[in-house]
Amino acid sequence: MGHAQRIGEGWLTGTTVVLAPDGGAVAAVDVRGGGPGTRETDALDPRNLVQRIDAVVLTGGSAFGLDSASGVAAWLEEQGRGFRVGPHSTQVVPVVPAAALFDLGRGGDWRARPDAALGRAAAEAAGRSRPGAPVARGNTGAGTGAVAGGLKGGTGTASLLLPSGFTVAALAVVNALGSVFDLSSGALYGQGYAPADHLGSGPSQGVGAGGRPGGGCGWVGVRPRLSHPPTPAVHAEAQRRLAEAQAESLRRSASSAQPPLNTTLVVVATDAVLTRAQAQKLAGTAHDGLARAVRPVHLLADGDTVFALATGERPLMPEGSDASAQPVSAGHPEIVALNEILAAGADAVARAVLDATLCAEGVDGPGGVFPSYRELYGPAD
Amino acid sequence: MGHAQRIGEGWLTGTTVVLAPDGGAVAAVDVRGGGPGTRETDALDPRNLVQRIDAVVLTGGSAFGLDSASGVAAWLEEQGRGFRVGPHSTQVVPVVPAAALFDLGRGGDWRARPDAALGRAAAEAAGRSRPGAPVARGNTGAGTGAVAGGLKGGTGTASLLLPSGFTVAALAVVNALGSVFDLSSGALYGQGYAPADHLGSGPSQGVGAGGRPGGGCGWVGVRPRLSHPPTPAVHAEAQRRLAEAQAESLRRSASSAQPPLNTTLVVVATDAVLTRAQAQKLAGTAHDGLARAVRPVHLLADGDTVFALATGERPLMPEGSDASAQPVSAGHPEIVALNEILAAGADAVARAVLDATLCAEGVDGPGGVFPSYRELYGPAD
Repeated sequence: MGHAQRIGEGWLTGTTVVLAPDGGAVAAVDVRGGGPGTRETDALDPRNLVQRIDAVVLTGGSAFGLDSASGVAAWLEEQGRGFRVGPHSTQVVPVVPAAALFDLGRGGDWRARPDAALGRAAAEAAGRSRPGAPVARGNTGAGTGAVAGGLKGGTGTASLLLPSGFTVAALAVVNALGSVFDLSSGALYGQGYAPADHLGSGPSQGVGAGGRPGGGCGWVGVRPRLSHPPTPAVHAEAQRRLAEAQAESLRRSASSAQPPLNTTLVVVATDAVLTRAQAQKLAGTAHDGLARAVRPVHLLADGDTVFALATGERPLMPEGSDASAQPVSAGHPEIVALNEILAAGADAVARAVLDATLCAEGVDGPGGVFPSYRELYGPAD
Repeated sequence: MGHAQRIGEGWLTGTTVVLAPDGGAVAAVDVRGGGPGTRETDALDPRNLVQRIDAVVLTGGSAFGLDSASGVAAWLEEQGRGFRVGPHSTQVVPVVPAAALFDLGRGGDWRARPDAALGRAAAEAAGRSRPGAPVARGNTGAGTGAVAGGLKGGTGTASLLLPSGFTVAALAVVNALGSVFDLSSGALYGQGYAPADHLGSGPSQGVGAGGRPGGGCGWVGVRPRLSHPPTPAVHAEAQRRLAEAQAESLRRSASSAQPPLNTTLVVVATDAVLTRAQAQKLAGTAHDGLARAVRPVHLLADGDTVFALATGERPLMPEGSDASAQPVSAGHPEIVALNEILAAGADAVARAVLDATLCAEGVDGPGGVFPSYRELYGPAD
């Protein structure tokens, strides 16, 4: 994964590239928001030609920001990666599915949007990153200008290692019309399903964030942990500060304070061998994690989109086994394995939304005042 | 709405019919489960011919139980209701979308399944019911044999009256592979989003269940309310009893104790004027309520299906207004109104799942032992 962003001088936006391993990954998409901005999603239909893709792009800049995928495609072409269309290995057409979120004006300049150069920078960063290395989260990449229900949104990750041996990981860029927390109590919606290791309690076995098992944001261990759910006094004060920030944002820029379009973008990935149709099912059930962590979600003004990637390192069933004749009730192993991956995908997404929420840092700029959840509900520094 | 069921002598199943007002309702469907059993769902595609339908059928009996829709169609034909195909008013073809859940063997007899006669009985009951009258919930209709995560499932309802004046109601029949409560604490998943008036706390303004605003199951007011979330001691004892019940169910009938297919069926309805495409969006976002109240959900072994009905009594926008030229950010009133209905649909579904869970009554029969949530976590009688 690689991020590129521009912050300051009117900018507050960025692009994130998820790079498949060499040879590409099986990919699928499920668009559930009512106002999506996407590119190359039709190519992912399991009935269509291209079998594997090399990169997925998530970007700020609304539909304009889709230009960033062009820079990623150019970089991939230079690497000789893409759908081979000619006799030479350089004759490739990279198919780069992309989805955009609305952050126009968040940095103050309505026209400061990710372009091909920013996309190339994110692709280069992804090319330099090593699997398993910590990844930057919070106000980074596509989440740089993200806002969720008045709070600063951002980029988050989570990964689960299942007892079956499969890994399921999620990247979420949270820029929602809805809220990630209960406005009546301040409690984070996702927490009931997906205990984050950022918070005081909850199991964290086999749960990782940011590419490192059990690893939280930079502030974990540095500052005291949040107590959750918040006390009524903390919540009342947080609500007061949030209302104040929203009023100030309106004063600075009506357009960015009340964003008309909002989108949570997700990439969910597994090392399992999945067919393209199975990957599409994974993309669909991953939306359940969004439903649990953001409320409301998938409305007309959201462009919520989930991409699924399967790198194909671990078969769903041991080789040579054939359980196709067994009834489902006997625990058809392929169905059981896939069901576990589907359930984990939703959980990983809910956790990635929590991670984005807790890693985000408040912004006070020309485009508005967007406090972070941690600023509002966390312990004083 | 009308229910019909058979209980005893090997039976534990039933059928529920939701009848549209005279003239029918705009209808749509969204199938998200991986193992659906449905009938006449293709007719609901917004591109297809039939504009309005007269009834929706939810039924037990897995794919066999879809026969119940035939009895409903026969009853509708006698009423002269259906898609008009000839010069005489009696020349109608009723289009009766239906979805089935898996409850085979739950009553002890694998072959005891809803048929056309049971469907007709449910349709007749629906024909006799008056709008706004209390409806039976719990072990009734399609929920008679329902089980969710080892607990007795059932039929539940909820309705919300929005500040905008629209009503959004949901009927849920909960028969899930996943669980409606957190196995680590006993807390109901839906409660964080959808406070049920059955429980000790939470807002209930404008929230109804069972067709009566604020009305709970029969036991509300009779028995003390549940305290929620459960104490660790109550949860530990509940888990012990649930494990015992599951072991006993396995002994009595391995097939029904470990159901291979599971399904939560939902009808969400509103009095708003919706296009067929808007109704389909409502069916889609209503699945978010399932995601919040059941975990995991939408897996391959689930047939989760949501029907949406719009009776068309209240236009989305005041007549004569034309906001089509306004930007979304100015609060395009049609989008705002529809977004509120979409969000309410998901909330109503989560509440209906809670209602079903809390209205269900435990069953101890030849097909297995299925304790209710209330038996396990509620106060002693």
